Amino acid sequence: MSGLPTEKKTDERNESATMLILMKPQATAEQIYRIKEKIDAMGYEAHEIPGATRIAIGITGNEESLLPDAFMYLDGVEEAVPVTKPYKLVGRHGKVGDTVIAIDGVAIGGKELVIMAGPCSVESREQLSATARAVKNAGATVLRGGAFKPRTSPYAFQGLKEQGLMLLQEARRETGLKIVTEVKDIRTLGAVNAATDILQIGARNMSNFSLLEAVGELRTPILLKRGISATLEELLMAAEYIVARGNTNVILCERGIRTFEPSTRFTLDLNAVPMLKKQSHLPVIVDPSHGIGIADGVPAMAMAAIAAGADGLIVEVHPDPATAKSDGGQSLKPETFATLMDRLRMLAPCVDRTLTKGNSI
Amino acid sequence: MSGLPTEKKTDERNESATMLILMKPQATAEQIYRIKEKIDAMGYEAHEIPGATRIAIGITGNEESLLPDAFMYLDGVEEAVPVTKPYKLVGRHGKVGDTVIAIDGVAIGGKELVIMAGPCSVESREQLSATARAVKNAGATVLRGGAFKPRTSPYAFQGLKEQGLMLLQEARRETGLKIVTEVKDIRTLGAVNAATDILQIGARNMSNFSLLEAVGELRTPILLKRGISATLEELLMAAEYIVARGNTNVILCERGIRTFEPSTRFTLDLNAVPMLKKQSHLPVIVDPSHGIGIADGVPAMAMAAIAAGADGLIVEVHPDPATAKSDGGQSLKPETFATLMDRLRMLAPCVDRTLTKGNSI
Amino acid sequence: MSGLPTEKKTDERNESATMLILMKPQATAEQIYRIKEKIDAMGYEAHEIPGATRIAIGITGNEESLLPDAFMYLDGVEEAVPVTKPYKLVGRHGKVGDTVIAIDGVAIGGKELVIMAGPCSVESREQLSATARAVKNAGATVLRGGAFKPRTSPYAFQGLKEQGLMLLQEARRETGLKIVTEVKDIRTLGAVNAATDILQIGARNMSNFSLLEAVGELRTPILLKRGISATLEELLMAAEYIVARGNTNVILCERGIRTFEPSTRFTLDLNAVPMLKKQSHLPVIVDPSHGIGIADGVPAMAMAAIAAGADGLIVEVHPDPATAKSDGGQSLKPETFATLMDRLRMLAPCVDRTLTKGNSI
Amino acid sequence: MSGLPTEKKTDERNESATMLILMKPQATAEQIYRIKEKIDAMGYEAHEIPGATRIAIGITGNEESLLPDAFMYLDGVEEAVPVTKPYKLVGRHGKVGDTVIAIDGVAIGGKELVIMAGPCSVESREQLSATARAVKNAGATVLRGGAFKPRTSPYAFQGLKEQGLMLLQEARRETGLKIVTEVKDIRTLGAVNAATDILQIGARNMSNFSLLEAVGELRTPILLKRGISATLEELLMAAEYIVARGNTNVILCERGIRTFEPSTRFTLDLNAVPMLKKQSHLPVIVDPSHGIGIADGVPAMAMAAIAAGADGLIVEVHPDPATAKSDGGQSLKPETFATLMDRLRMLAPCVDRTLTKGNSI
Repeated sequence: MSGLPTEKKTDERNESATMLILMKPQATAEQIYRIKEKIDAMGYEAHEIPGATRIAIGITGNEESLLPDAFMYLDGVEEAVPVTKPYKLVGRHGKVGDTVIAIDGVAIGGKELVIMAGPCSVESREQLSATARAVKNAGATVLRGGAFKPRTSPYAFQGLKEQGLMLLQEARRETGLKIVTEVKDIRTLGAVNAATDILQIGARNMSNFSLLEAVGELRTPILLKRGISATLEELLMAAEYIVARGNTNVILCERGIRTFEPSTRFTLDLNAVPMLKKQSHLPVIVDPSHGIGIADGVPAMAMAAIAAGADGLIVEVHPDPATAKSDGGQSLKPETFATLMDRLRMLAPCVDRTLTKGNSI
Repeated sequence: MSGLPTEKKTDERNESATMLILMKPQATAEQIYRIKEKIDAMGYEAHEIPGATRIAIGITGNEESLLPDAFMYLDGVEEAVPVTKPYKLVGRHGKVGDTVIAIDGVAIGGKELVIMAGPCSVESREQLSATARAVKNAGATVLRGGAFKPRTSPYAFQGLKEQGLMLLQEARRETGLKIVTEVKDIRTLGAVNAATDILQIGARNMSNFSLLEAVGELRTPILLKRGISATLEELLMAAEYIVARGNTNVILCERGIRTFEPSTRFTLDLNAVPMLKKQSHLPVIVDPSHGIGIADGVPAMAMAAIAAGADGLIVEVHPDPATAKSDGGQSLKPETFATLMDRLRMLAPCVDRTLTKGNSI
Repeated sequence: MSGLPTEKKTDERNESATMLILMKPQATAEQIYRIKEKIDAMGYEAHEIPGATRIAIGITGNEESLLPDAFMYLDGVEEAVPVTKPYKLVGRHGKVGDTVIAIDGVAIGGKELVIMAGPCSVESREQLSATARAVKNAGATVLRGGAFKPRTSPYAFQGLKEQGLMLLQEARRETGLKIVTEVKDIRTLGAVNAATDILQIGARNMSNFSLLEAVGELRTPILLKRGISATLEELLMAAEYIVARGNTNVILCERGIRTFEPSTRFTLDLNAVPMLKKQSHLPVIVDPSHGIGIADGVPAMAMAAIAAGADGLIVEVHPDPATAKSDGGQSLKPETFATLMDRLRMLAPCVDRTLTKGNSI
Repeated sequence: MSGLPTEKKTDERNESATMLILMKPQATAEQIYRIKEKIDAMGYEAHEIPGATRIAIGITGNEESLLPDAFMYLDGVEEAVPVTKPYKLVGRHGKVGDTVIAIDGVAIGGKELVIMAGPCSVESREQLSATARAVKNAGATVLRGGAFKPRTSPYAFQGLKEQGLMLLQEARRETGLKIVTEVKDIRTLGAVNAATDILQIGARNMSNFSLLEAVGELRTPILLKRGISATLEELLMAAEYIVARGNTNVILCERGIRTFEPSTRFTLDLNAVPMLKKQSHLPVIVDPSHGIGIADGVPAMAMAAIAAGADGLIVEVHPDPATAKSDGGQSLKPETFATLMDRLRMLAPCVDRTLTKGNSI
């Protein structure tokens, strides 16, 4: 390889083995040698661990996380087991306590629950203003609304774009609500970032690493939605992409995964809440609207999410769901949302949380 | 077909179309004729519904539910859409109000939550008695415990069998708790039925129709667990098998489905709670222990299940999970269970439920 | 535990560690002690394997396979890794060469491909006889046909039962084809076994362990279908149930798994063919009819299955699919089947197989 | 909504109903009125279709495809059934015959199979050159190799980037092979496009609509990989995004979907081949390397893909898989690849295809 750069390995050594390679009982000395040579070539250290009938090889010295793929299928290998998690910055082992993200009076990840609510898409000044006032009165502190919409069909409504952003800012001025809206590509990132308090990375973009890196350069809080078939570890790795660039303000969001069940839009995986809380110090919120996809099931799943320990919710509310340009079938009417908020207020103390009452504007 | 019986059609006609067959715009008259002939041959009535550019054919007169398979792939057919649900007796349309199953002082499906708790397997008199007393004190009213265990490996512990049943009955005498235990085949059904208050059909047997028919002949309440890859409709169809034989005492149980997520044992599908409640009048309980499979996530999911509207829970509790012969990793210690019960007692009124305190014995 | 039997451990020791327990770096001496105590209590031997910063504990001496569940979630444990497969008799390590099952002139698992074909359900003498002659002429050697049908709906056609068995035997006498038919419960096992050459265990019964044990007592070849959400390891464990009872004549069958994809009935997992062949010495056949569920996709998947290395196929063929009582949408017409067989005959040598021509009767 | 643009509807009317809304039997006149009003507000025409006991409403006049979501959950609605496919340009109904994409002597989608082969990542001049010569000799006509690599971990090797592109062009000059390489974002699209013959959109970017639109503006052939949890319809909709912008040179690629099966990296869904071929005129190729993820299963799945009717393959080949920086476990050695190519050459005529011999360079 003439003149091309080699990967640099740092001197800083992580003394704990991060991968354990279990050799087959019948593995030959030559196979074992090949494995150790490979580890060496990668710039790490191999440690032979002799057992009764087989040997294991531990790897240390790697700053980067290793993936089992690199060893799993080599000759003589029975199994390659990562024994430390592949993420570092977002994991509990790297930080004491929980991350609380404060946005000018609204704290996400603290004792007070945070409720984000609003329409799927910003459709008009009237629609957004009516929704914003309603959700504010009911106690929400963040207004959601899509301006740039990623849609499965190239022929579907793609959002009001810049005009949508403008309307969101008007609604913020009018109500004092913080804004969360989705950014769907790097090209529009500047404009969206300038207009919002929280940037949403949608489920389809959870593995759009270029976009993750770009928002990692910002300091705006990022609402990172789980991809519909992403494992929890992959969600944490996506967060790691952002945090590794310096933006530590990441909010994880469970919003339903794709399974075989056809009667709901997705399967809301509330197991994710205790699991993510256990692994990571980042705040975790839940989107029950996409998670079940049917409006009359949303309140039940919103309650369940908070009972499971979520730090907050993001809920679709529309003044007239039947005429919504997108997601009408899963949007709550403002009065149903207000009733739900009253229930959530009763529920909060059962999980050592608070939910302050809204005040009319 | 010489001398073999034909399927009998009853005179009782259901006047509402149960399947709508949408023909392709270019479907030929002969293809339409074939479809109608097939419907006729099945003993039903075909109704042509002309549209602008295509026709649809409605089917009436079938007492049995039809499955789209029968028509979906025939020539000229665009789509076959069942427009009534394939289940009848377990659906809300067939009954006003909710089914409440009363077992001598314990009501399942009413305002009071029902908590079933106990070890995965009955292992010994001491283990069962200690668990029974602990869960009774904490407020459970039903004791769970497996005597005949279906196990993935033929080499794994298969339960204490008849001796397990005997120990369950002892525990009932001692504590007054009702008993729920699994029946895994027809051969042992008599013995298990004689020893228990509620018969559990495990997830692996949800589609064991011979067993469903056999328990349909009994009047013992049946706890029917959802198969790990069963749709909600299939769960309701399995319940229909039981109810169609005359046993209306069926309790549905969500216990986690199999998905791609590797960090939890199953994915607890709490969407199932509002969805089943909407479709069916039968009580719905949740098994958070199998649903997440990791003890320290169980309390969160138990809370979530009740917040989602479940009528109760079935929870694994073991006096010493580290030595359990099965499912130790997902069993709660008695003291953790007691703390959870206190939380559930706080939560109950938030969903218009009650949960009575236990009393020590 | 007064007077109840303890699990017996045999003296025969398997010297190779079967599970490796990786402790956390911060695991305490007391946690390590507890693990070793538990292993001891189970009658096995614990071997401490010291590493740079953590220790691992290997387990030997267990005759039964161990499941990671037993250790995975205990305090101080990072990971429990099974390092030998949980099945023994069906694995390649336990036997040299491939199992070939010979049934009076038909060999399954040898160089000659075996093609099983026929209707989903036996419906009438005419239907079965016409199909049997057609598939025989095309080169099939085994006739499939369901007499006892497990159906999702209690209201669907459940098969001709005993009369169906009688018709299958007539068809055998007439054509010389071997018979494969499904047994759905223990109660009818005797009758079905008496009438057939190969007993099919359907996908829904793959984890019906009582039925597996019962057919394990027979010597009739068993066609074991993979459950729709069973892992390959679970399929092999189900086979192990049968073989452990003494019936070594097990044929594994991939028939499609349940995934999120809605346009096909199931997702035919042909990866299963090389994976099962690698792990096990048992013959592997494929059911492309259920695997895709749409007749005009069946020939492509039949070809693919053989190209992937399957030992044979089981295919649904019906003289008039449009009038079939079940699975009409996925059944081939006899002439399409004959064309497919000609293609398969061309394909066979590409994978070092043969497929003999049929001869008319 | 002051001054914001309304969605434009064209005059061009599609006379065939594209959605059928089935009302509940008990739907009120007012509910029916609301539905029709909504359809009207969207600029389409509603057609009432009276049935025996319920009515259906057909929708015509929409140029854009409609999604069931818009109606499915409205009051009084039983079901909303799309009766035309949501894609237009990529569907068979919109075009006679198959699309064949010709790149200067290599035709994709014609009678000759196209085999793309090469390393996962371009690692060095020596590695790429050795691989290119080997796959050319074996009969491949397109060289694959990643220069910009999307990786789950921010710490994993991300590719040689611009230097990788340069090496790919060198290999093209040296061997005459066409080049296919992945583009992971809009920012690097210009550079990648200038260096390659075929642009690959990876599975993670299948729903990155901004990127799809950008490549739609080009005329470079696009190899569009199916997302790991994308339905076939969603894959076709992603292709529609590209074709709708004017780039009709789209090659669909099945590469495995995520399921519950843990023993393989993905589940290769070969059902996709006949299904996509039936729905669309675009060429379909298969990636068996990712589809099974284990090198010794790749040849079987490559054979199966061609037997299922695929137009070609994309296969990972590496001169020394054990030292590969990515995907070593699923890469074939050059000699295994050459043997596979010989087998594929035997197989081709069984599916009316050809595969020309390579010639050494």
